[in-house]
Amino acid sequence: MPRIKLILAYVGTNYHGWQIQKNGLTIQEVLETQLSRICNQPIRVHGSGRTDAGVHALGQVAHFDAPDSRLDFDWQLALNAMLPKDIAIVDTSPVPPDFHARFSAVHKHYSYTLWTEPRFTLPQRAPLVWAVHNLDLEAMDQAATYLAGTHDFAAFQNSGADTSSTVRTLEPMIRTPGQYPGEWVYHFQANGFLKQMVRNLMGFLVQVGRGALLPQKAQEILSGKDRCQAPGTAPPQGLCLEQVFY
Amino acid sequence: MPRIKLILAYVGTNYHGWQIQKNGLTIQEVLETQLSRICNQPIRVHGSGRTDAGVHALGQVAHFDAPDSRLDFDWQLALNAMLPKDIAIVDTSPVPPDFHARFSAVHKHYSYTLWTEPRFTLPQRAPLVWAVHNLDLEAMDQAATYLAGTHDFAAFQNSGADTSSTVRTLEPMIRTPGQYPGEWVYHFQANGFLKQMVRNLMGFLVQVGRGALLPQKAQEILSGKDRCQAPGTAPPQGLCLEQVFY
Repeated sequence: MPRIKLILAYVGTNYHGWQIQKNGLTIQEVLETQLSRICNQPIRVHGSGRTDAGVHALGQVAHFDAPDSRLDFDWQLALNAMLPKDIAIVDTSPVPPDFHARFSAVHKHYSYTLWTEPRFTLPQRAPLVWAVHNLDLEAMDQAATYLAGTHDFAAFQNSGADTSSTVRTLEPMIRTPGQYPGEWVYHFQANGFLKQMVRNLMGFLVQVGRGALLPQKAQEILSGKDRCQAPGTAPPQGLCLEQVFY
Repeated sequence: MPRIKLILAYVGTNYHGWQIQKNGLTIQEVLETQLSRICNQPIRVHGSGRTDAGVHALGQVAHFDAPDSRLDFDWQLALNAMLPKDIAIVDTSPVPPDFHARFSAVHKHYSYTLWTEPRFTLPQRAPLVWAVHNLDLEAMDQAATYLAGTHDFAAFQNSGADTSSTVRTLEPMIRTPGQYPGEWVYHFQANGFLKQMVRNLMGFLVQVGRGALLPQKAQEILSGKDRCQAPGTAPPQGLCLEQVFY
C-alpha cells in the first residue's frame, strides 16, 4: 500500500470546507470520490487539518494509501483531469508509511488578505479578500507584536474544537503588499492553529485598525482566555492555507 | 444633462459580453438597469467598445448623460452598492458634453494571460488565464515583433464587424511575468482593435510557441489579409481590457 502525499490548491467559495459532512459538498468528499473511482475501491483521504467553508488553499496537504496495483501511477495527471476547476493537485509524492498529513505536520502558514480601498472592490479579487476600510495599519502591526510568541490562545478559539491544549507558538506576523494597490496580505505562521484562530486574530486586528481597540488590548484578551472578550471572527474568503511544513 | 464617465472593472465569466443582446445578460444591460433605477428614467450607456462573452476588464470606459437633478451625485457609491460583485465602478468623473467613450478613445491596452505550468492550473487563476503548455516564449516574442507597427490586420479580424478600415497601429508587444510562476502576461496596445483581434493575435502567437508555425509566418498572414490563413481564436478568459486612453 504505497502512501501518497498530495499538495492541493482550491478556491473554497463553493464548498462547505475541507472535511466531509452531511450538510454539503466538501473538498475532501470530491477528492475521495475521484480517488475511489480511479482505484475502484473506497479511498480515505487524510488532510493536514480542516479549512472552514469558504476558505481557500494554495498548499493544503493530504495523504492516502493507494492500492499496490497503482504503483508508479501518475496521480496528479489523473486527478487534475477529473477534479473541478476550483480544486487542483499542485504536487504529489510517495511518502513513508509513517507519514501522516495531520500528525506529522510541524508548522503551518496561513495568509489573510484585506482589501482596503474604500470606494470599490475589484471583482477579480473580491472572492479572495475581505474588504475593510479606513484602517490604521501601523496600529494593527503593533497589536500583532503582542500576539507573537508562545501563548494560550484560548480567547481566539471558537467553540466546538476537541484540542487538549490551546497553547501555540505564533511567529511574528508579516504584512506584505497584495496584488493590487490597497491590498494587504497578513501572514500567520505557527506550530499549529486552533479552530478559526487566524480568522479570530484577524477579526481582532481589524478592530484595532478601526480604532475600536488599542493594540495592547491583545495582552488582556490573551490572558483572559475568554472567547467572549475577543472581537468577532473575520469572514472566510480572505483566508488561505499557504503551506504545511513537515 | 451632465455627462458622466465611468471606469469599470468586471469578471466577464458570467456575462454574454459587454453589449446588450437578446441572448443573455450583458454588462451594459446590468449597468443600464441600475442607472435607470437610480434616475427613475431610462438611461443609455455608451461603452468604449464591446468586450466578448467571457472577457474581463480592469479599465473599461463608458459614459452616460445624467438627469440635471442628479448634479453632484455620488455615482460610484450608488452603483457599487447596487451592482453584483463581479462588476465594479473603479472611478467616475464629469466630462464635457462632447466626450464619447467610444469615439473619443485614441488608444487601448489589452492584456492576455497565459498559464504555462503543464501539470496543473491554479484554481485561483483559472478563471483569468488560458492554460497552454510547452511554449517557446522566445519564438513568440520574435513573432510579435513582426506584428508591431501599422498594418492591415484584416487576417486577424473575425467576421461580423462593420469597420470601414482594418488598418491599425500596434505598439511593440510587451511580455511580463504574471502573479504566479508559469504565468505570463502579454500586453497589446494599439490605436484601436478589430473584432477579436487580440484573441486572434494570441491564437497565432501560441501556434508559434507550439512550433506549429514559424515566427516570420506573421508577415505572410498579415499580407494575405485572409482570416482563414491565420490560426484560431484564443479563448476569452485570458483577455482583459486594461485601459482606454483619451
